[in-house]
Amino acid sequence: MEQGKKAVVLLSGGIDSTTALAMAQADGYQVYGLTFLYGQRQGLEVEAAKRIGRAAKLADHRMVEIDLTIFGGSALTSDMAVPKRRSLEEMRRQVPITYVPARNTIFLSFALAFAESIGAADIFIGVNAIDYSGYPDCRPEFIRAFEAMANLGTKAGIEGRRIKIRTPLIEMSKAQIIRAGTALGVNYTHTTSCYDPDDEGLACGACDSCLIRKKGFAEAGLNDPTRYQEGAE
Amino acid sequence: MEQGKKAVVLLSGGIDSTTALAMAQADGYQVYGLTFLYGQRQGLEVEAAKRIGRAAKLADHRMVEIDLTIFGGSALTSDMAVPKRRSLEEMRRQVPITYVPARNTIFLSFALAFAESIGAADIFIGVNAIDYSGYPDCRPEFIRAFEAMANLGTKAGIEGRRIKIRTPLIEMSKAQIIRAGTALGVNYTHTTSCYDPDDEGLACGACDSCLIRKKGFAEAGLNDPTRYQEGAE
Repeated sequence: MEQGKKAVVLLSGGIDSTTALAMAQADGYQVYGLTFLYGQRQGLEVEAAKRIGRAAKLADHRMVEIDLTIFGGSALTSDMAVPKRRSLEEMRRQVPITYVPARNTIFLSFALAFAESIGAADIFIGVNAIDYSGYPDCRPEFIRAFEAMANLGTKAGIEGRRIKIRTPLIEMSKAQIIRAGTALGVNYTHTTSCYDPDDEGLACGACDSCLIRKKGFAEAGLNDPTRYQEGAE
Repeated sequence: MEQGKKAVVLLSGGIDSTTALAMAQADGYQVYGLTFLYGQRQGLEVEAAKRIGRAAKLADHRMVEIDLTIFGGSALTSDMAVPKRRSLEEMRRQVPITYVPARNTIFLSFALAFAESIGAADIFIGVNAIDYSGYPDCRPEFIRAFEAMANLGTKAGIEGRRIKIRTPLIEMSKAQIIRAGTALGVNYTHTTSCYDPDDEGLACGACDSCLIRKKGFAEAGLNDPTRYQEGAE
């Protein structure tokens, strides 16, 4: 590929986006990070994203504040209780209350604007459809539909600079993601996953996200660097 | 249709969105307005949208601030000069510099989140493809692609409450829009169109948007209530 080809990478501070970032850089992309502050309870995520961005020496890293709390409707942006200790079967049975309406649509729309303005054609998003925890906007058919729309709705698209939504993790399990990232030198100590951390930032160990993370490290046979709350199983 | 069916209407303060709002209400929808503050030079637009929303007695009217200036690249959000006195042919020849990267994609994404959170399935946007002034994200194929994506990426969509992007103006000329709105009782005095108003809020009369507006009123055979700057032709 061309030297210095630009990509926008959505960076949340979690395992998946951090791995997607490492993959984009391994592919030779010059990475422009994009992180959202969207009223999520875990401000820790944003701090994690900043640390990860600095460690990865991004070409640029933009923080965009968007007020999703006015839309309500999610345990991640309001006071609703985060569900705990659910089996993977339970997680998959329905769209979880941690679903934020149209979140990835909004995130990708900003990434699209950012990509157009810097002349990038590639947008990386660390979604995966295996351990995807029931979110409709993490499915391959959604991503393909977004890409089709992006190429019809932008100057870049209609002028022939085809926008591509890159989802290198989409068919990978959490364990495969962690192994692949570790092979690329990712230090997951910087990442955060918990939906319900305590005041000191320690993970609860019991929300869907913690459970999927723990299972991932266990299946990958790698040490989980997460600091869990005392008493967390 | 059902009594009290909810719709989200994107309301910019211009002729098109104001007419789309009147049409949604005429169809019996309970309207939830959504207006964006996105660093546009014409803060007048937002004031116009507020006046129009109050006059229309909306069920709710949300103002969402999004920082598009960080993306640069448009005469509407930066210091680039707004082109003046262009023919319609010139306007159509290329995507204008007043194009804001991915603007309608971002606007519709927020409308989608708002619609999901209030249980609405219909989103009205006043785009039109006739006097559309060269924007890729005003074309029918973009709207259809957005709708397809929206139904794959939301809980509403996958649970069978089909999201519909309503574009009642898409095949109408500006003159037809103004006639239709006038028939529904719209008072266009409240609306604003100019890309480059002066400090007193008077329209320049020469930017693409003013030219299309003036032509619309002229062709509709209706009085243009716009206050133009002294010396504007």
